[in-house]
Amino acid sequence: MKKSQLGRRTFIASSAGLVGAGAAATFASPAISQNRRKWRMVTTWPKNLPGLGTGAQHFADQVTRATGGRLTIELFASGEIVPAFESIDAVGAGNIEMGHGAPYYWKGKAPATQLVSNFPMGLTAQEYNAWYHFGGGRDLCDELYRSALGCKFLPCGNTGIQHPGWSRKEVNSLDDIKGLKMRMPGLGGEVMSRLGATVVNLPGSEVPGALASGAIDWAEWNNPYGEASMGFYRYAKYYYTPGWHEPGTVLELFVNAEKWDSLEDELKAIVENCAYATNQVMLAEFQARSGPVLDSFVNDHGTIVKELSDDIMREIGKVSGEAMQDLANSDPMAMKIFKSMIEFRGHQIRYTNVAEGSFIKARALEYPFPS
Amino acid sequence: MKKSQLGRRTFIASSAGLVGAGAAATFASPAISQNRRKWRMVTTWPKNLPGLGTGAQHFADQVTRATGGRLTIELFASGEIVPAFESIDAVGAGNIEMGHGAPYYWKGKAPATQLVSNFPMGLTAQEYNAWYHFGGGRDLCDELYRSALGCKFLPCGNTGIQHPGWSRKEVNSLDDIKGLKMRMPGLGGEVMSRLGATVVNLPGSEVPGALASGAIDWAEWNNPYGEASMGFYRYAKYYYTPGWHEPGTVLELFVNAEKWDSLEDELKAIVENCAYATNQVMLAEFQARSGPVLDSFVNDHGTIVKELSDDIMREIGKVSGEAMQDLANSDPMAMKIFKSMIEFRGHQIRYTNVAEGSFIKARALEYPFPS
Repeated sequence: MKKSQLGRRTFIASSAGLVGAGAAATFASPAISQNRRKWRMVTTWPKNLPGLGTGAQHFADQVTRATGGRLTIELFASGEIVPAFESIDAVGAGNIEMGHGAPYYWKGKAPATQLVSNFPMGLTAQEYNAWYHFGGGRDLCDELYRSALGCKFLPCGNTGIQHPGWSRKEVNSLDDIKGLKMRMPGLGGEVMSRLGATVVNLPGSEVPGALASGAIDWAEWNNPYGEASMGFYRYAKYYYTPGWHEPGTVLELFVNAEKWDSLEDELKAIVENCAYATNQVMLAEFQARSGPVLDSFVNDHGTIVKELSDDIMREIGKVSGEAMQDLANSDPMAMKIFKSMIEFRGHQIRYTNVAEGSFIKARALEYPFPS
Repeated sequence: MKKSQLGRRTFIASSAGLVGAGAAATFASPAISQNRRKWRMVTTWPKNLPGLGTGAQHFADQVTRATGGRLTIELFASGEIVPAFESIDAVGAGNIEMGHGAPYYWKGKAPATQLVSNFPMGLTAQEYNAWYHFGGGRDLCDELYRSALGCKFLPCGNTGIQHPGWSRKEVNSLDDIKGLKMRMPGLGGEVMSRLGATVVNLPGSEVPGALASGAIDWAEWNNPYGEASMGFYRYAKYYYTPGWHEPGTVLELFVNAEKWDSLEDELKAIVENCAYATNQVMLAEFQARSGPVLDSFVNDHGTIVKELSDDIMREIGKVSGEAMQDLANSDPMAMKIFKSMIEFRGHQIRYTNVAEGSFIKARALEYPFPS
C-alpha cells in the first residue's frame, strides 16, 4: 500500500514545528533554547496502562530528557486525539509525528506486520533482538514500514513469553482441543482453529464475564502481570503453558518517515537509543512483576499450572509452521521477512535450548538454597 | 574502601575538560559547538575484541553521536594507557572519566562486585535486567560503586548464559568431578573445588595448549561465539551444559562519581540510555552469533553436547548456595546485595521455568517446520 493511500483524513492541523529559533538567534542563549520541537506520540494503549502505557510514557519522557527539551514528546492515549487503530494512518500521513503500538494491529494494511510482531513457535524476546540487530531484521522492518506504512520502525518494548491461557477444562490430548471454545486472537487463534477449536473473538472487557459464564472454556490474555487485575483465576483453575502462540511479542515505535528523515543524526541517535533502552525496560517490568503474581495465583488462589503434552506441542508446532507458510505465500514482503526469520530461528533452537533452556530447567530442581 | 585510597598514582595529567566555550559565547553558534567535552574510556578488553571490545566501542560511538560531539568518548583498549586491572583505580581517582569491564574484576576492592556480575545458579540476563530496573538493583549497585570504588555504575552488556566448559572426559556422576583438573575461574571454580575438583588458574592464552596436552581435563571460557577462535573442539569432545556458573554475566560502565555528578541531566540521560541500549545490543550479538557457531561445532567438528545430570545439578545448586552464603557473610555490602538478589530470584524461578523454559523445551521437539 502506498503512503498516499493512508491519509484518510486530516485529524489535526499540524501544530508541531520549530519554535524559539528567532529569539535564540539574537543572543548567545543556552544550547537547549534553540531549535525546540514538540512532537506528538499517539499510542494504542489506555493512559498509563500498567506495562504498555507506562512503558510508552517512559520512552517519551526519556527522549524529552535526553534532548533537554529540544525534542519534547507529548503522549496521547488511545482515543484522546486518534482512535487506537487509526494511529498508523495519522502517523503515515504526517498528521502526527509518531506512535506506539503492536505491529500486528496493522495486518489489514500489510500482512507482514504480523511477522514483525513475532510468530507462533517463533523467537524468544532475546532472539528477536538478536535477529533485529545482527540478523538482518532492522533493514527488513524498515523496508516494510516505509513502503507499506510511510513510517520508520523501531522495536520499543516486548511482553516476553505470553501465556496461552486460562482454561476451565483440562486439555490432555488433541481430542480435548476439538470444539473447545477459546478466546485467542491472531495467529495463535488461527492455529487452534485448524486444530478444531471454536475460536471466539471478544474485546478484552468481555473476556472475564464470558469465562465466568462458561460462554468460553479458555481465555488468552498476555502474562501474569497483565492478567493480575482481570481475575481469570476466579473462573478457570488451569493456567496453561508454554506460550507457543506469542513467544515474545514486540511493541513498536513508528515515526512518520519524512519527519524521521528530517531529524538531525544526533536526534535520531537519541530516539534510537531511547527506543532500544525502553525495549529492555518494558520487558524487565513484565518479567519482574510477573514472577510474584504467578506465585500468588498458585499459592493464594489455587491455580494449577499445567504444561501441554509433547504430543500436543508437536502438532501445534507442525500446524504453526503450515499457517506461517500460508501467510508467507500470500504476500511477497511477508515471504521475504519469513525467510529471514525462519533461517535465523533454525540456528537458534539448539543454542537457546542448551543455554537458556538447560539452565532454567536445572535451576528449578529441588535443592537447598538461601532465600 | 574509600575513594581516596584508590588513586595509587596519577596516570595522565587530565587533558579532558571544556573547550570552545569562550568562542561559543561570542556569537549564536549552533548548539553543538558549545560546551564540548572529550572523555576517555578505558576498557579491560583488547581493541575490538569480538563482542566485548566491539560492544564497548558501540557504546562510545553512540554517546558521541547522540550528543553531537558535546560529549565525545574516546576508547582505550586494555593496556593502552592503563593496565586492564587498574582501570577502576584510574577512574575512581578521577584521572580517567569512565571505564568498561566486568564487575567481578574488582572483588579484591569490594567482594560484593562478584554478586553485581551475577552468581552461580543466579539470574538469567532477562531476570538481571528486571532486578536492576524493578527489583532495587540500581540503588544497591550505585551504593556499592560509590562507597567502595568512587564510581557511578551502569549495566552495559551481558554475555548471556555461559557454557561451563569443554571436557576431555565424560562426567556422569559426582565421583567423576573428584580430581578433575578444571580451568574455571571465579565463583564457579570455588563451587567445583568444594565438590573435589582440582581447579587450576590459567590465563586465556595458555588454556588451549593446556587442554591439548591434557594438563587440564576441562576448560571453561564463555560462549560459542567467544570460543569460536579458541579451537577447544580440537582437544575436547564434550561440550557441557547448563551454564550454572555464570548464567548471564553483566558487563559494566563505571564513571567517576564526581564527573558523573557534574554532568547536566540531559547528558546523564544520554549516557544512561546508550548504556541500556548497549546492554541489549551486546547480548543480541552473543545470541545471534553463538547459534550458528554451536551448530558448526556439532555438525562440522563432531562436538557432543552433554547435559550434566539432575543429580549433579542438585548438588551443584546446594553447594552454590553455600558458597554464596559464605561470600555474603564475609562482607556487609555483599550481604545486603545478596539478600535483595535471592529474594528476587525466589519469585522468578517458577515464572521463568513455565514461561521461557517451557517454550524453549517445546520448540526443540521434533516436528516439521519451514526452514
